[in-house]
Amino acid sequence: MLGTRRRLAILAEGRFTPLDAKTAVGVLRYRPEEVAAIVDSTRAGRTAAECVGVGGVVPVVSGIEEAAARGADSLMIGIAPQGGDLPADWRPPVRQALGRGWDVLAGLHVFLGDDPELADLARRTGARLLDVRRPPAGRRVAARRAAGVEALVVLTVGSDCNVGKMTAALEIARGLGERGARAAFVATGQTGIFIAGRGVAADAIPADFVAGEIEHEVIEAARGADVVVVEGQGALHHPGYSGVTLALLHGACPRVMVLCHQAGRERVRPPAAAPPPDSVSTPAIPPLGELIESYERAAGWVCPSRVVAVALNTLGLPDAEARSAVERAARETGLAAADPVRFGAAPLVEAVEACRGRARATLG
Amino acid sequence: MLGTRRRLAILAEGRFTPLDAKTAVGVLRYRPEEVAAIVDSTRAGRTAAECVGVGGVVPVVSGIEEAAARGADSLMIGIAPQGGDLPADWRPPVRQALGRGWDVLAGLHVFLGDDPELADLARRTGARLLDVRRPPAGRRVAARRAAGVEALVVLTVGSDCNVGKMTAALEIARGLGERGARAAFVATGQTGIFIAGRGVAADAIPADFVAGEIEHEVIEAARGADVVVVEGQGALHHPGYSGVTLALLHGACPRVMVLCHQAGRERVRPPAAAPPPDSVSTPAIPPLGELIESYERAAGWVCPSRVVAVALNTLGLPDAEARSAVERAARETGLAAADPVRFGAAPLVEAVEACRGRARATLG
Repeated sequence: MLGTRRRLAILAEGRFTPLDAKTAVGVLRYRPEEVAAIVDSTRAGRTAAECVGVGGVVPVVSGIEEAAARGADSLMIGIAPQGGDLPADWRPPVRQALGRGWDVLAGLHVFLGDDPELADLARRTGARLLDVRRPPAGRRVAARRAAGVEALVVLTVGSDCNVGKMTAALEIARGLGERGARAAFVATGQTGIFIAGRGVAADAIPADFVAGEIEHEVIEAARGADVVVVEGQGALHHPGYSGVTLALLHGACPRVMVLCHQAGRERVRPPAAAPPPDSVSTPAIPPLGELIESYERAAGWVCPSRVVAVALNTLGLPDAEARSAVERAARETGLAAADPVRFGAAPLVEAVEACRGRARATLG
Repeated sequence: MLGTRRRLAILAEGRFTPLDAKTAVGVLRYRPEEVAAIVDSTRAGRTAAECVGVGGVVPVVSGIEEAAARGADSLMIGIAPQGGDLPADWRPPVRQALGRGWDVLAGLHVFLGDDPELADLARRTGARLLDVRRPPAGRRVAARRAAGVEALVVLTVGSDCNVGKMTAALEIARGLGERGARAAFVATGQTGIFIAGRGVAADAIPADFVAGEIEHEVIEAARGADVVVVEGQGALHHPGYSGVTLALLHGACPRVMVLCHQAGRERVRPPAAAPPPDSVSTPAIPPLGELIESYERAAGWVCPSRVVAVALNTLGLPDAEARSAVERAARETGLAAADPVRFGAAPLVEAVEACRGRARATLG
């Protein structure tokens, strides 16, 4: 991961749950062999699978010492801080890790490398502070160049944050690969970057250059690939993050999109890192058909695109309800639908594969 | 300007034309009393009005020495660099200005204050490097809080960059003020910030926080104002900048919008700072009715809004053609239309004023 094979301790203190520890869960799902231990003193003694449903017998331990005893050699920050700043109680484990010469991998908006105390400590022990959200130095402006690549470009889009856009993209790329296609995955968020070992965190780039950086990533990924699957971010009707979503859509110029939704979610979730007061409501999530129309219309402002499948996240539903939710989504939209984690991504992969070779629509 | 009354020399070397020197032209139009001279050795000896149609007899001079002789005490960068980096031939005038102890005001994506040589020189002479595009340190996430302000919030939106969104916003705010309303202007780009003396450059903020910063600016401006007029940025169908546009729309939660367009422009212009190769086309600008529908639909994803007037930039057209272009826009959209610079903003101001007191639509 990020240049070398690692044995990670993942910091998820007090928050090692499926919803709070999104980064930890993503890495456990796709890179379990690189995780030595999870650090959460409130859940020490349990396994990862017991806490979040993935990661098998990876142990939850109470601190850095115990993680070291399990063979860890790097620390990854696996949760997002409330409010955005590095919480005071995260400093001791980060300091301990650096003191041991461990690299610290972080995907925060605040950069650990800019913290004088931590940077100094890292220098003294030869450790590295790897802030994967730090934006590239370039100033690229998109000009729908990605519309010109030969490869089929697929973008996962969503009804909200944290509904499964990264997971759907990874599962589709994996499924295409299993069918013999040369499939590339483009990571656009910190968890995806940790998993893929490269990528760019769209949400931390100065706004003028988000689409340009994504365009560049897509063009690079398309060299030698038949299909490029791009991890989407946010949602068009998310009050805080819609700009990131549209920049990604217009930078990537996908020929097809896969709509991701969590069954049963009715309103956009307030951001955990900066929750508004209770008096402020978040927008209702429109019906799937309306979402599809919005994404296709927004794409068409720059480069036409179609939603070809629905990835439904049924986390927490009993099996029978999950199956009928998937069937309902397929009926409602007339598209292939699947929960790629629970029931496999085959319907999504087939829907994407059916679009290979078809001509792209003409640009307006 | 920016904390003190100044006598500015504006650097526009080789590019003091209406289209290239957007910042210089904006400041000349709204703050002529603060401009001592324009620096452009290729046009020295002429007046500002002769070169760009505004600024009256403000002289164009060949360098910093001559600007000093005209009473300048600060230097403003009035043009955007090709490619984004500080061009080598801009360093001598910037160094000369700093050497004299002049503050240097810049709205570039590259920050002069981060340039070791310039920062060191400024320290030695007591000059300041004022980078107005440097994003605020906070990490605000929008949650449609701006929808709750009492004041009428107006946003100018556009068919492209550089069609007159800032100017329309300033003229509408001025017109409302002349009619006795307490009108606040919210600057969202470098030129607007230079003119207003405050604001935030939306396009340089890390993408996750653009809407949040704009929301904050609107809420602050609404204290003690009847109407808040927000300067728009970019366009929904601009391949590079659409994300900034949508973030602004969803952060400001305007109750009404004014659509800005340049008569005769048929395609989105490639960005001057990073032009794509000739083989890459830019999107066609849709008809006004379609633009209006797109903006209203996109607004409605978070907070309903209506376009209530069209600001048409008729720069370069003969008078008769300009008048008929304005009439055509009014007929085509069924809305009030005006070129606020050429024929006055009264129709736009009246259209906005007619919306005061009307109830806001319910949030979904």
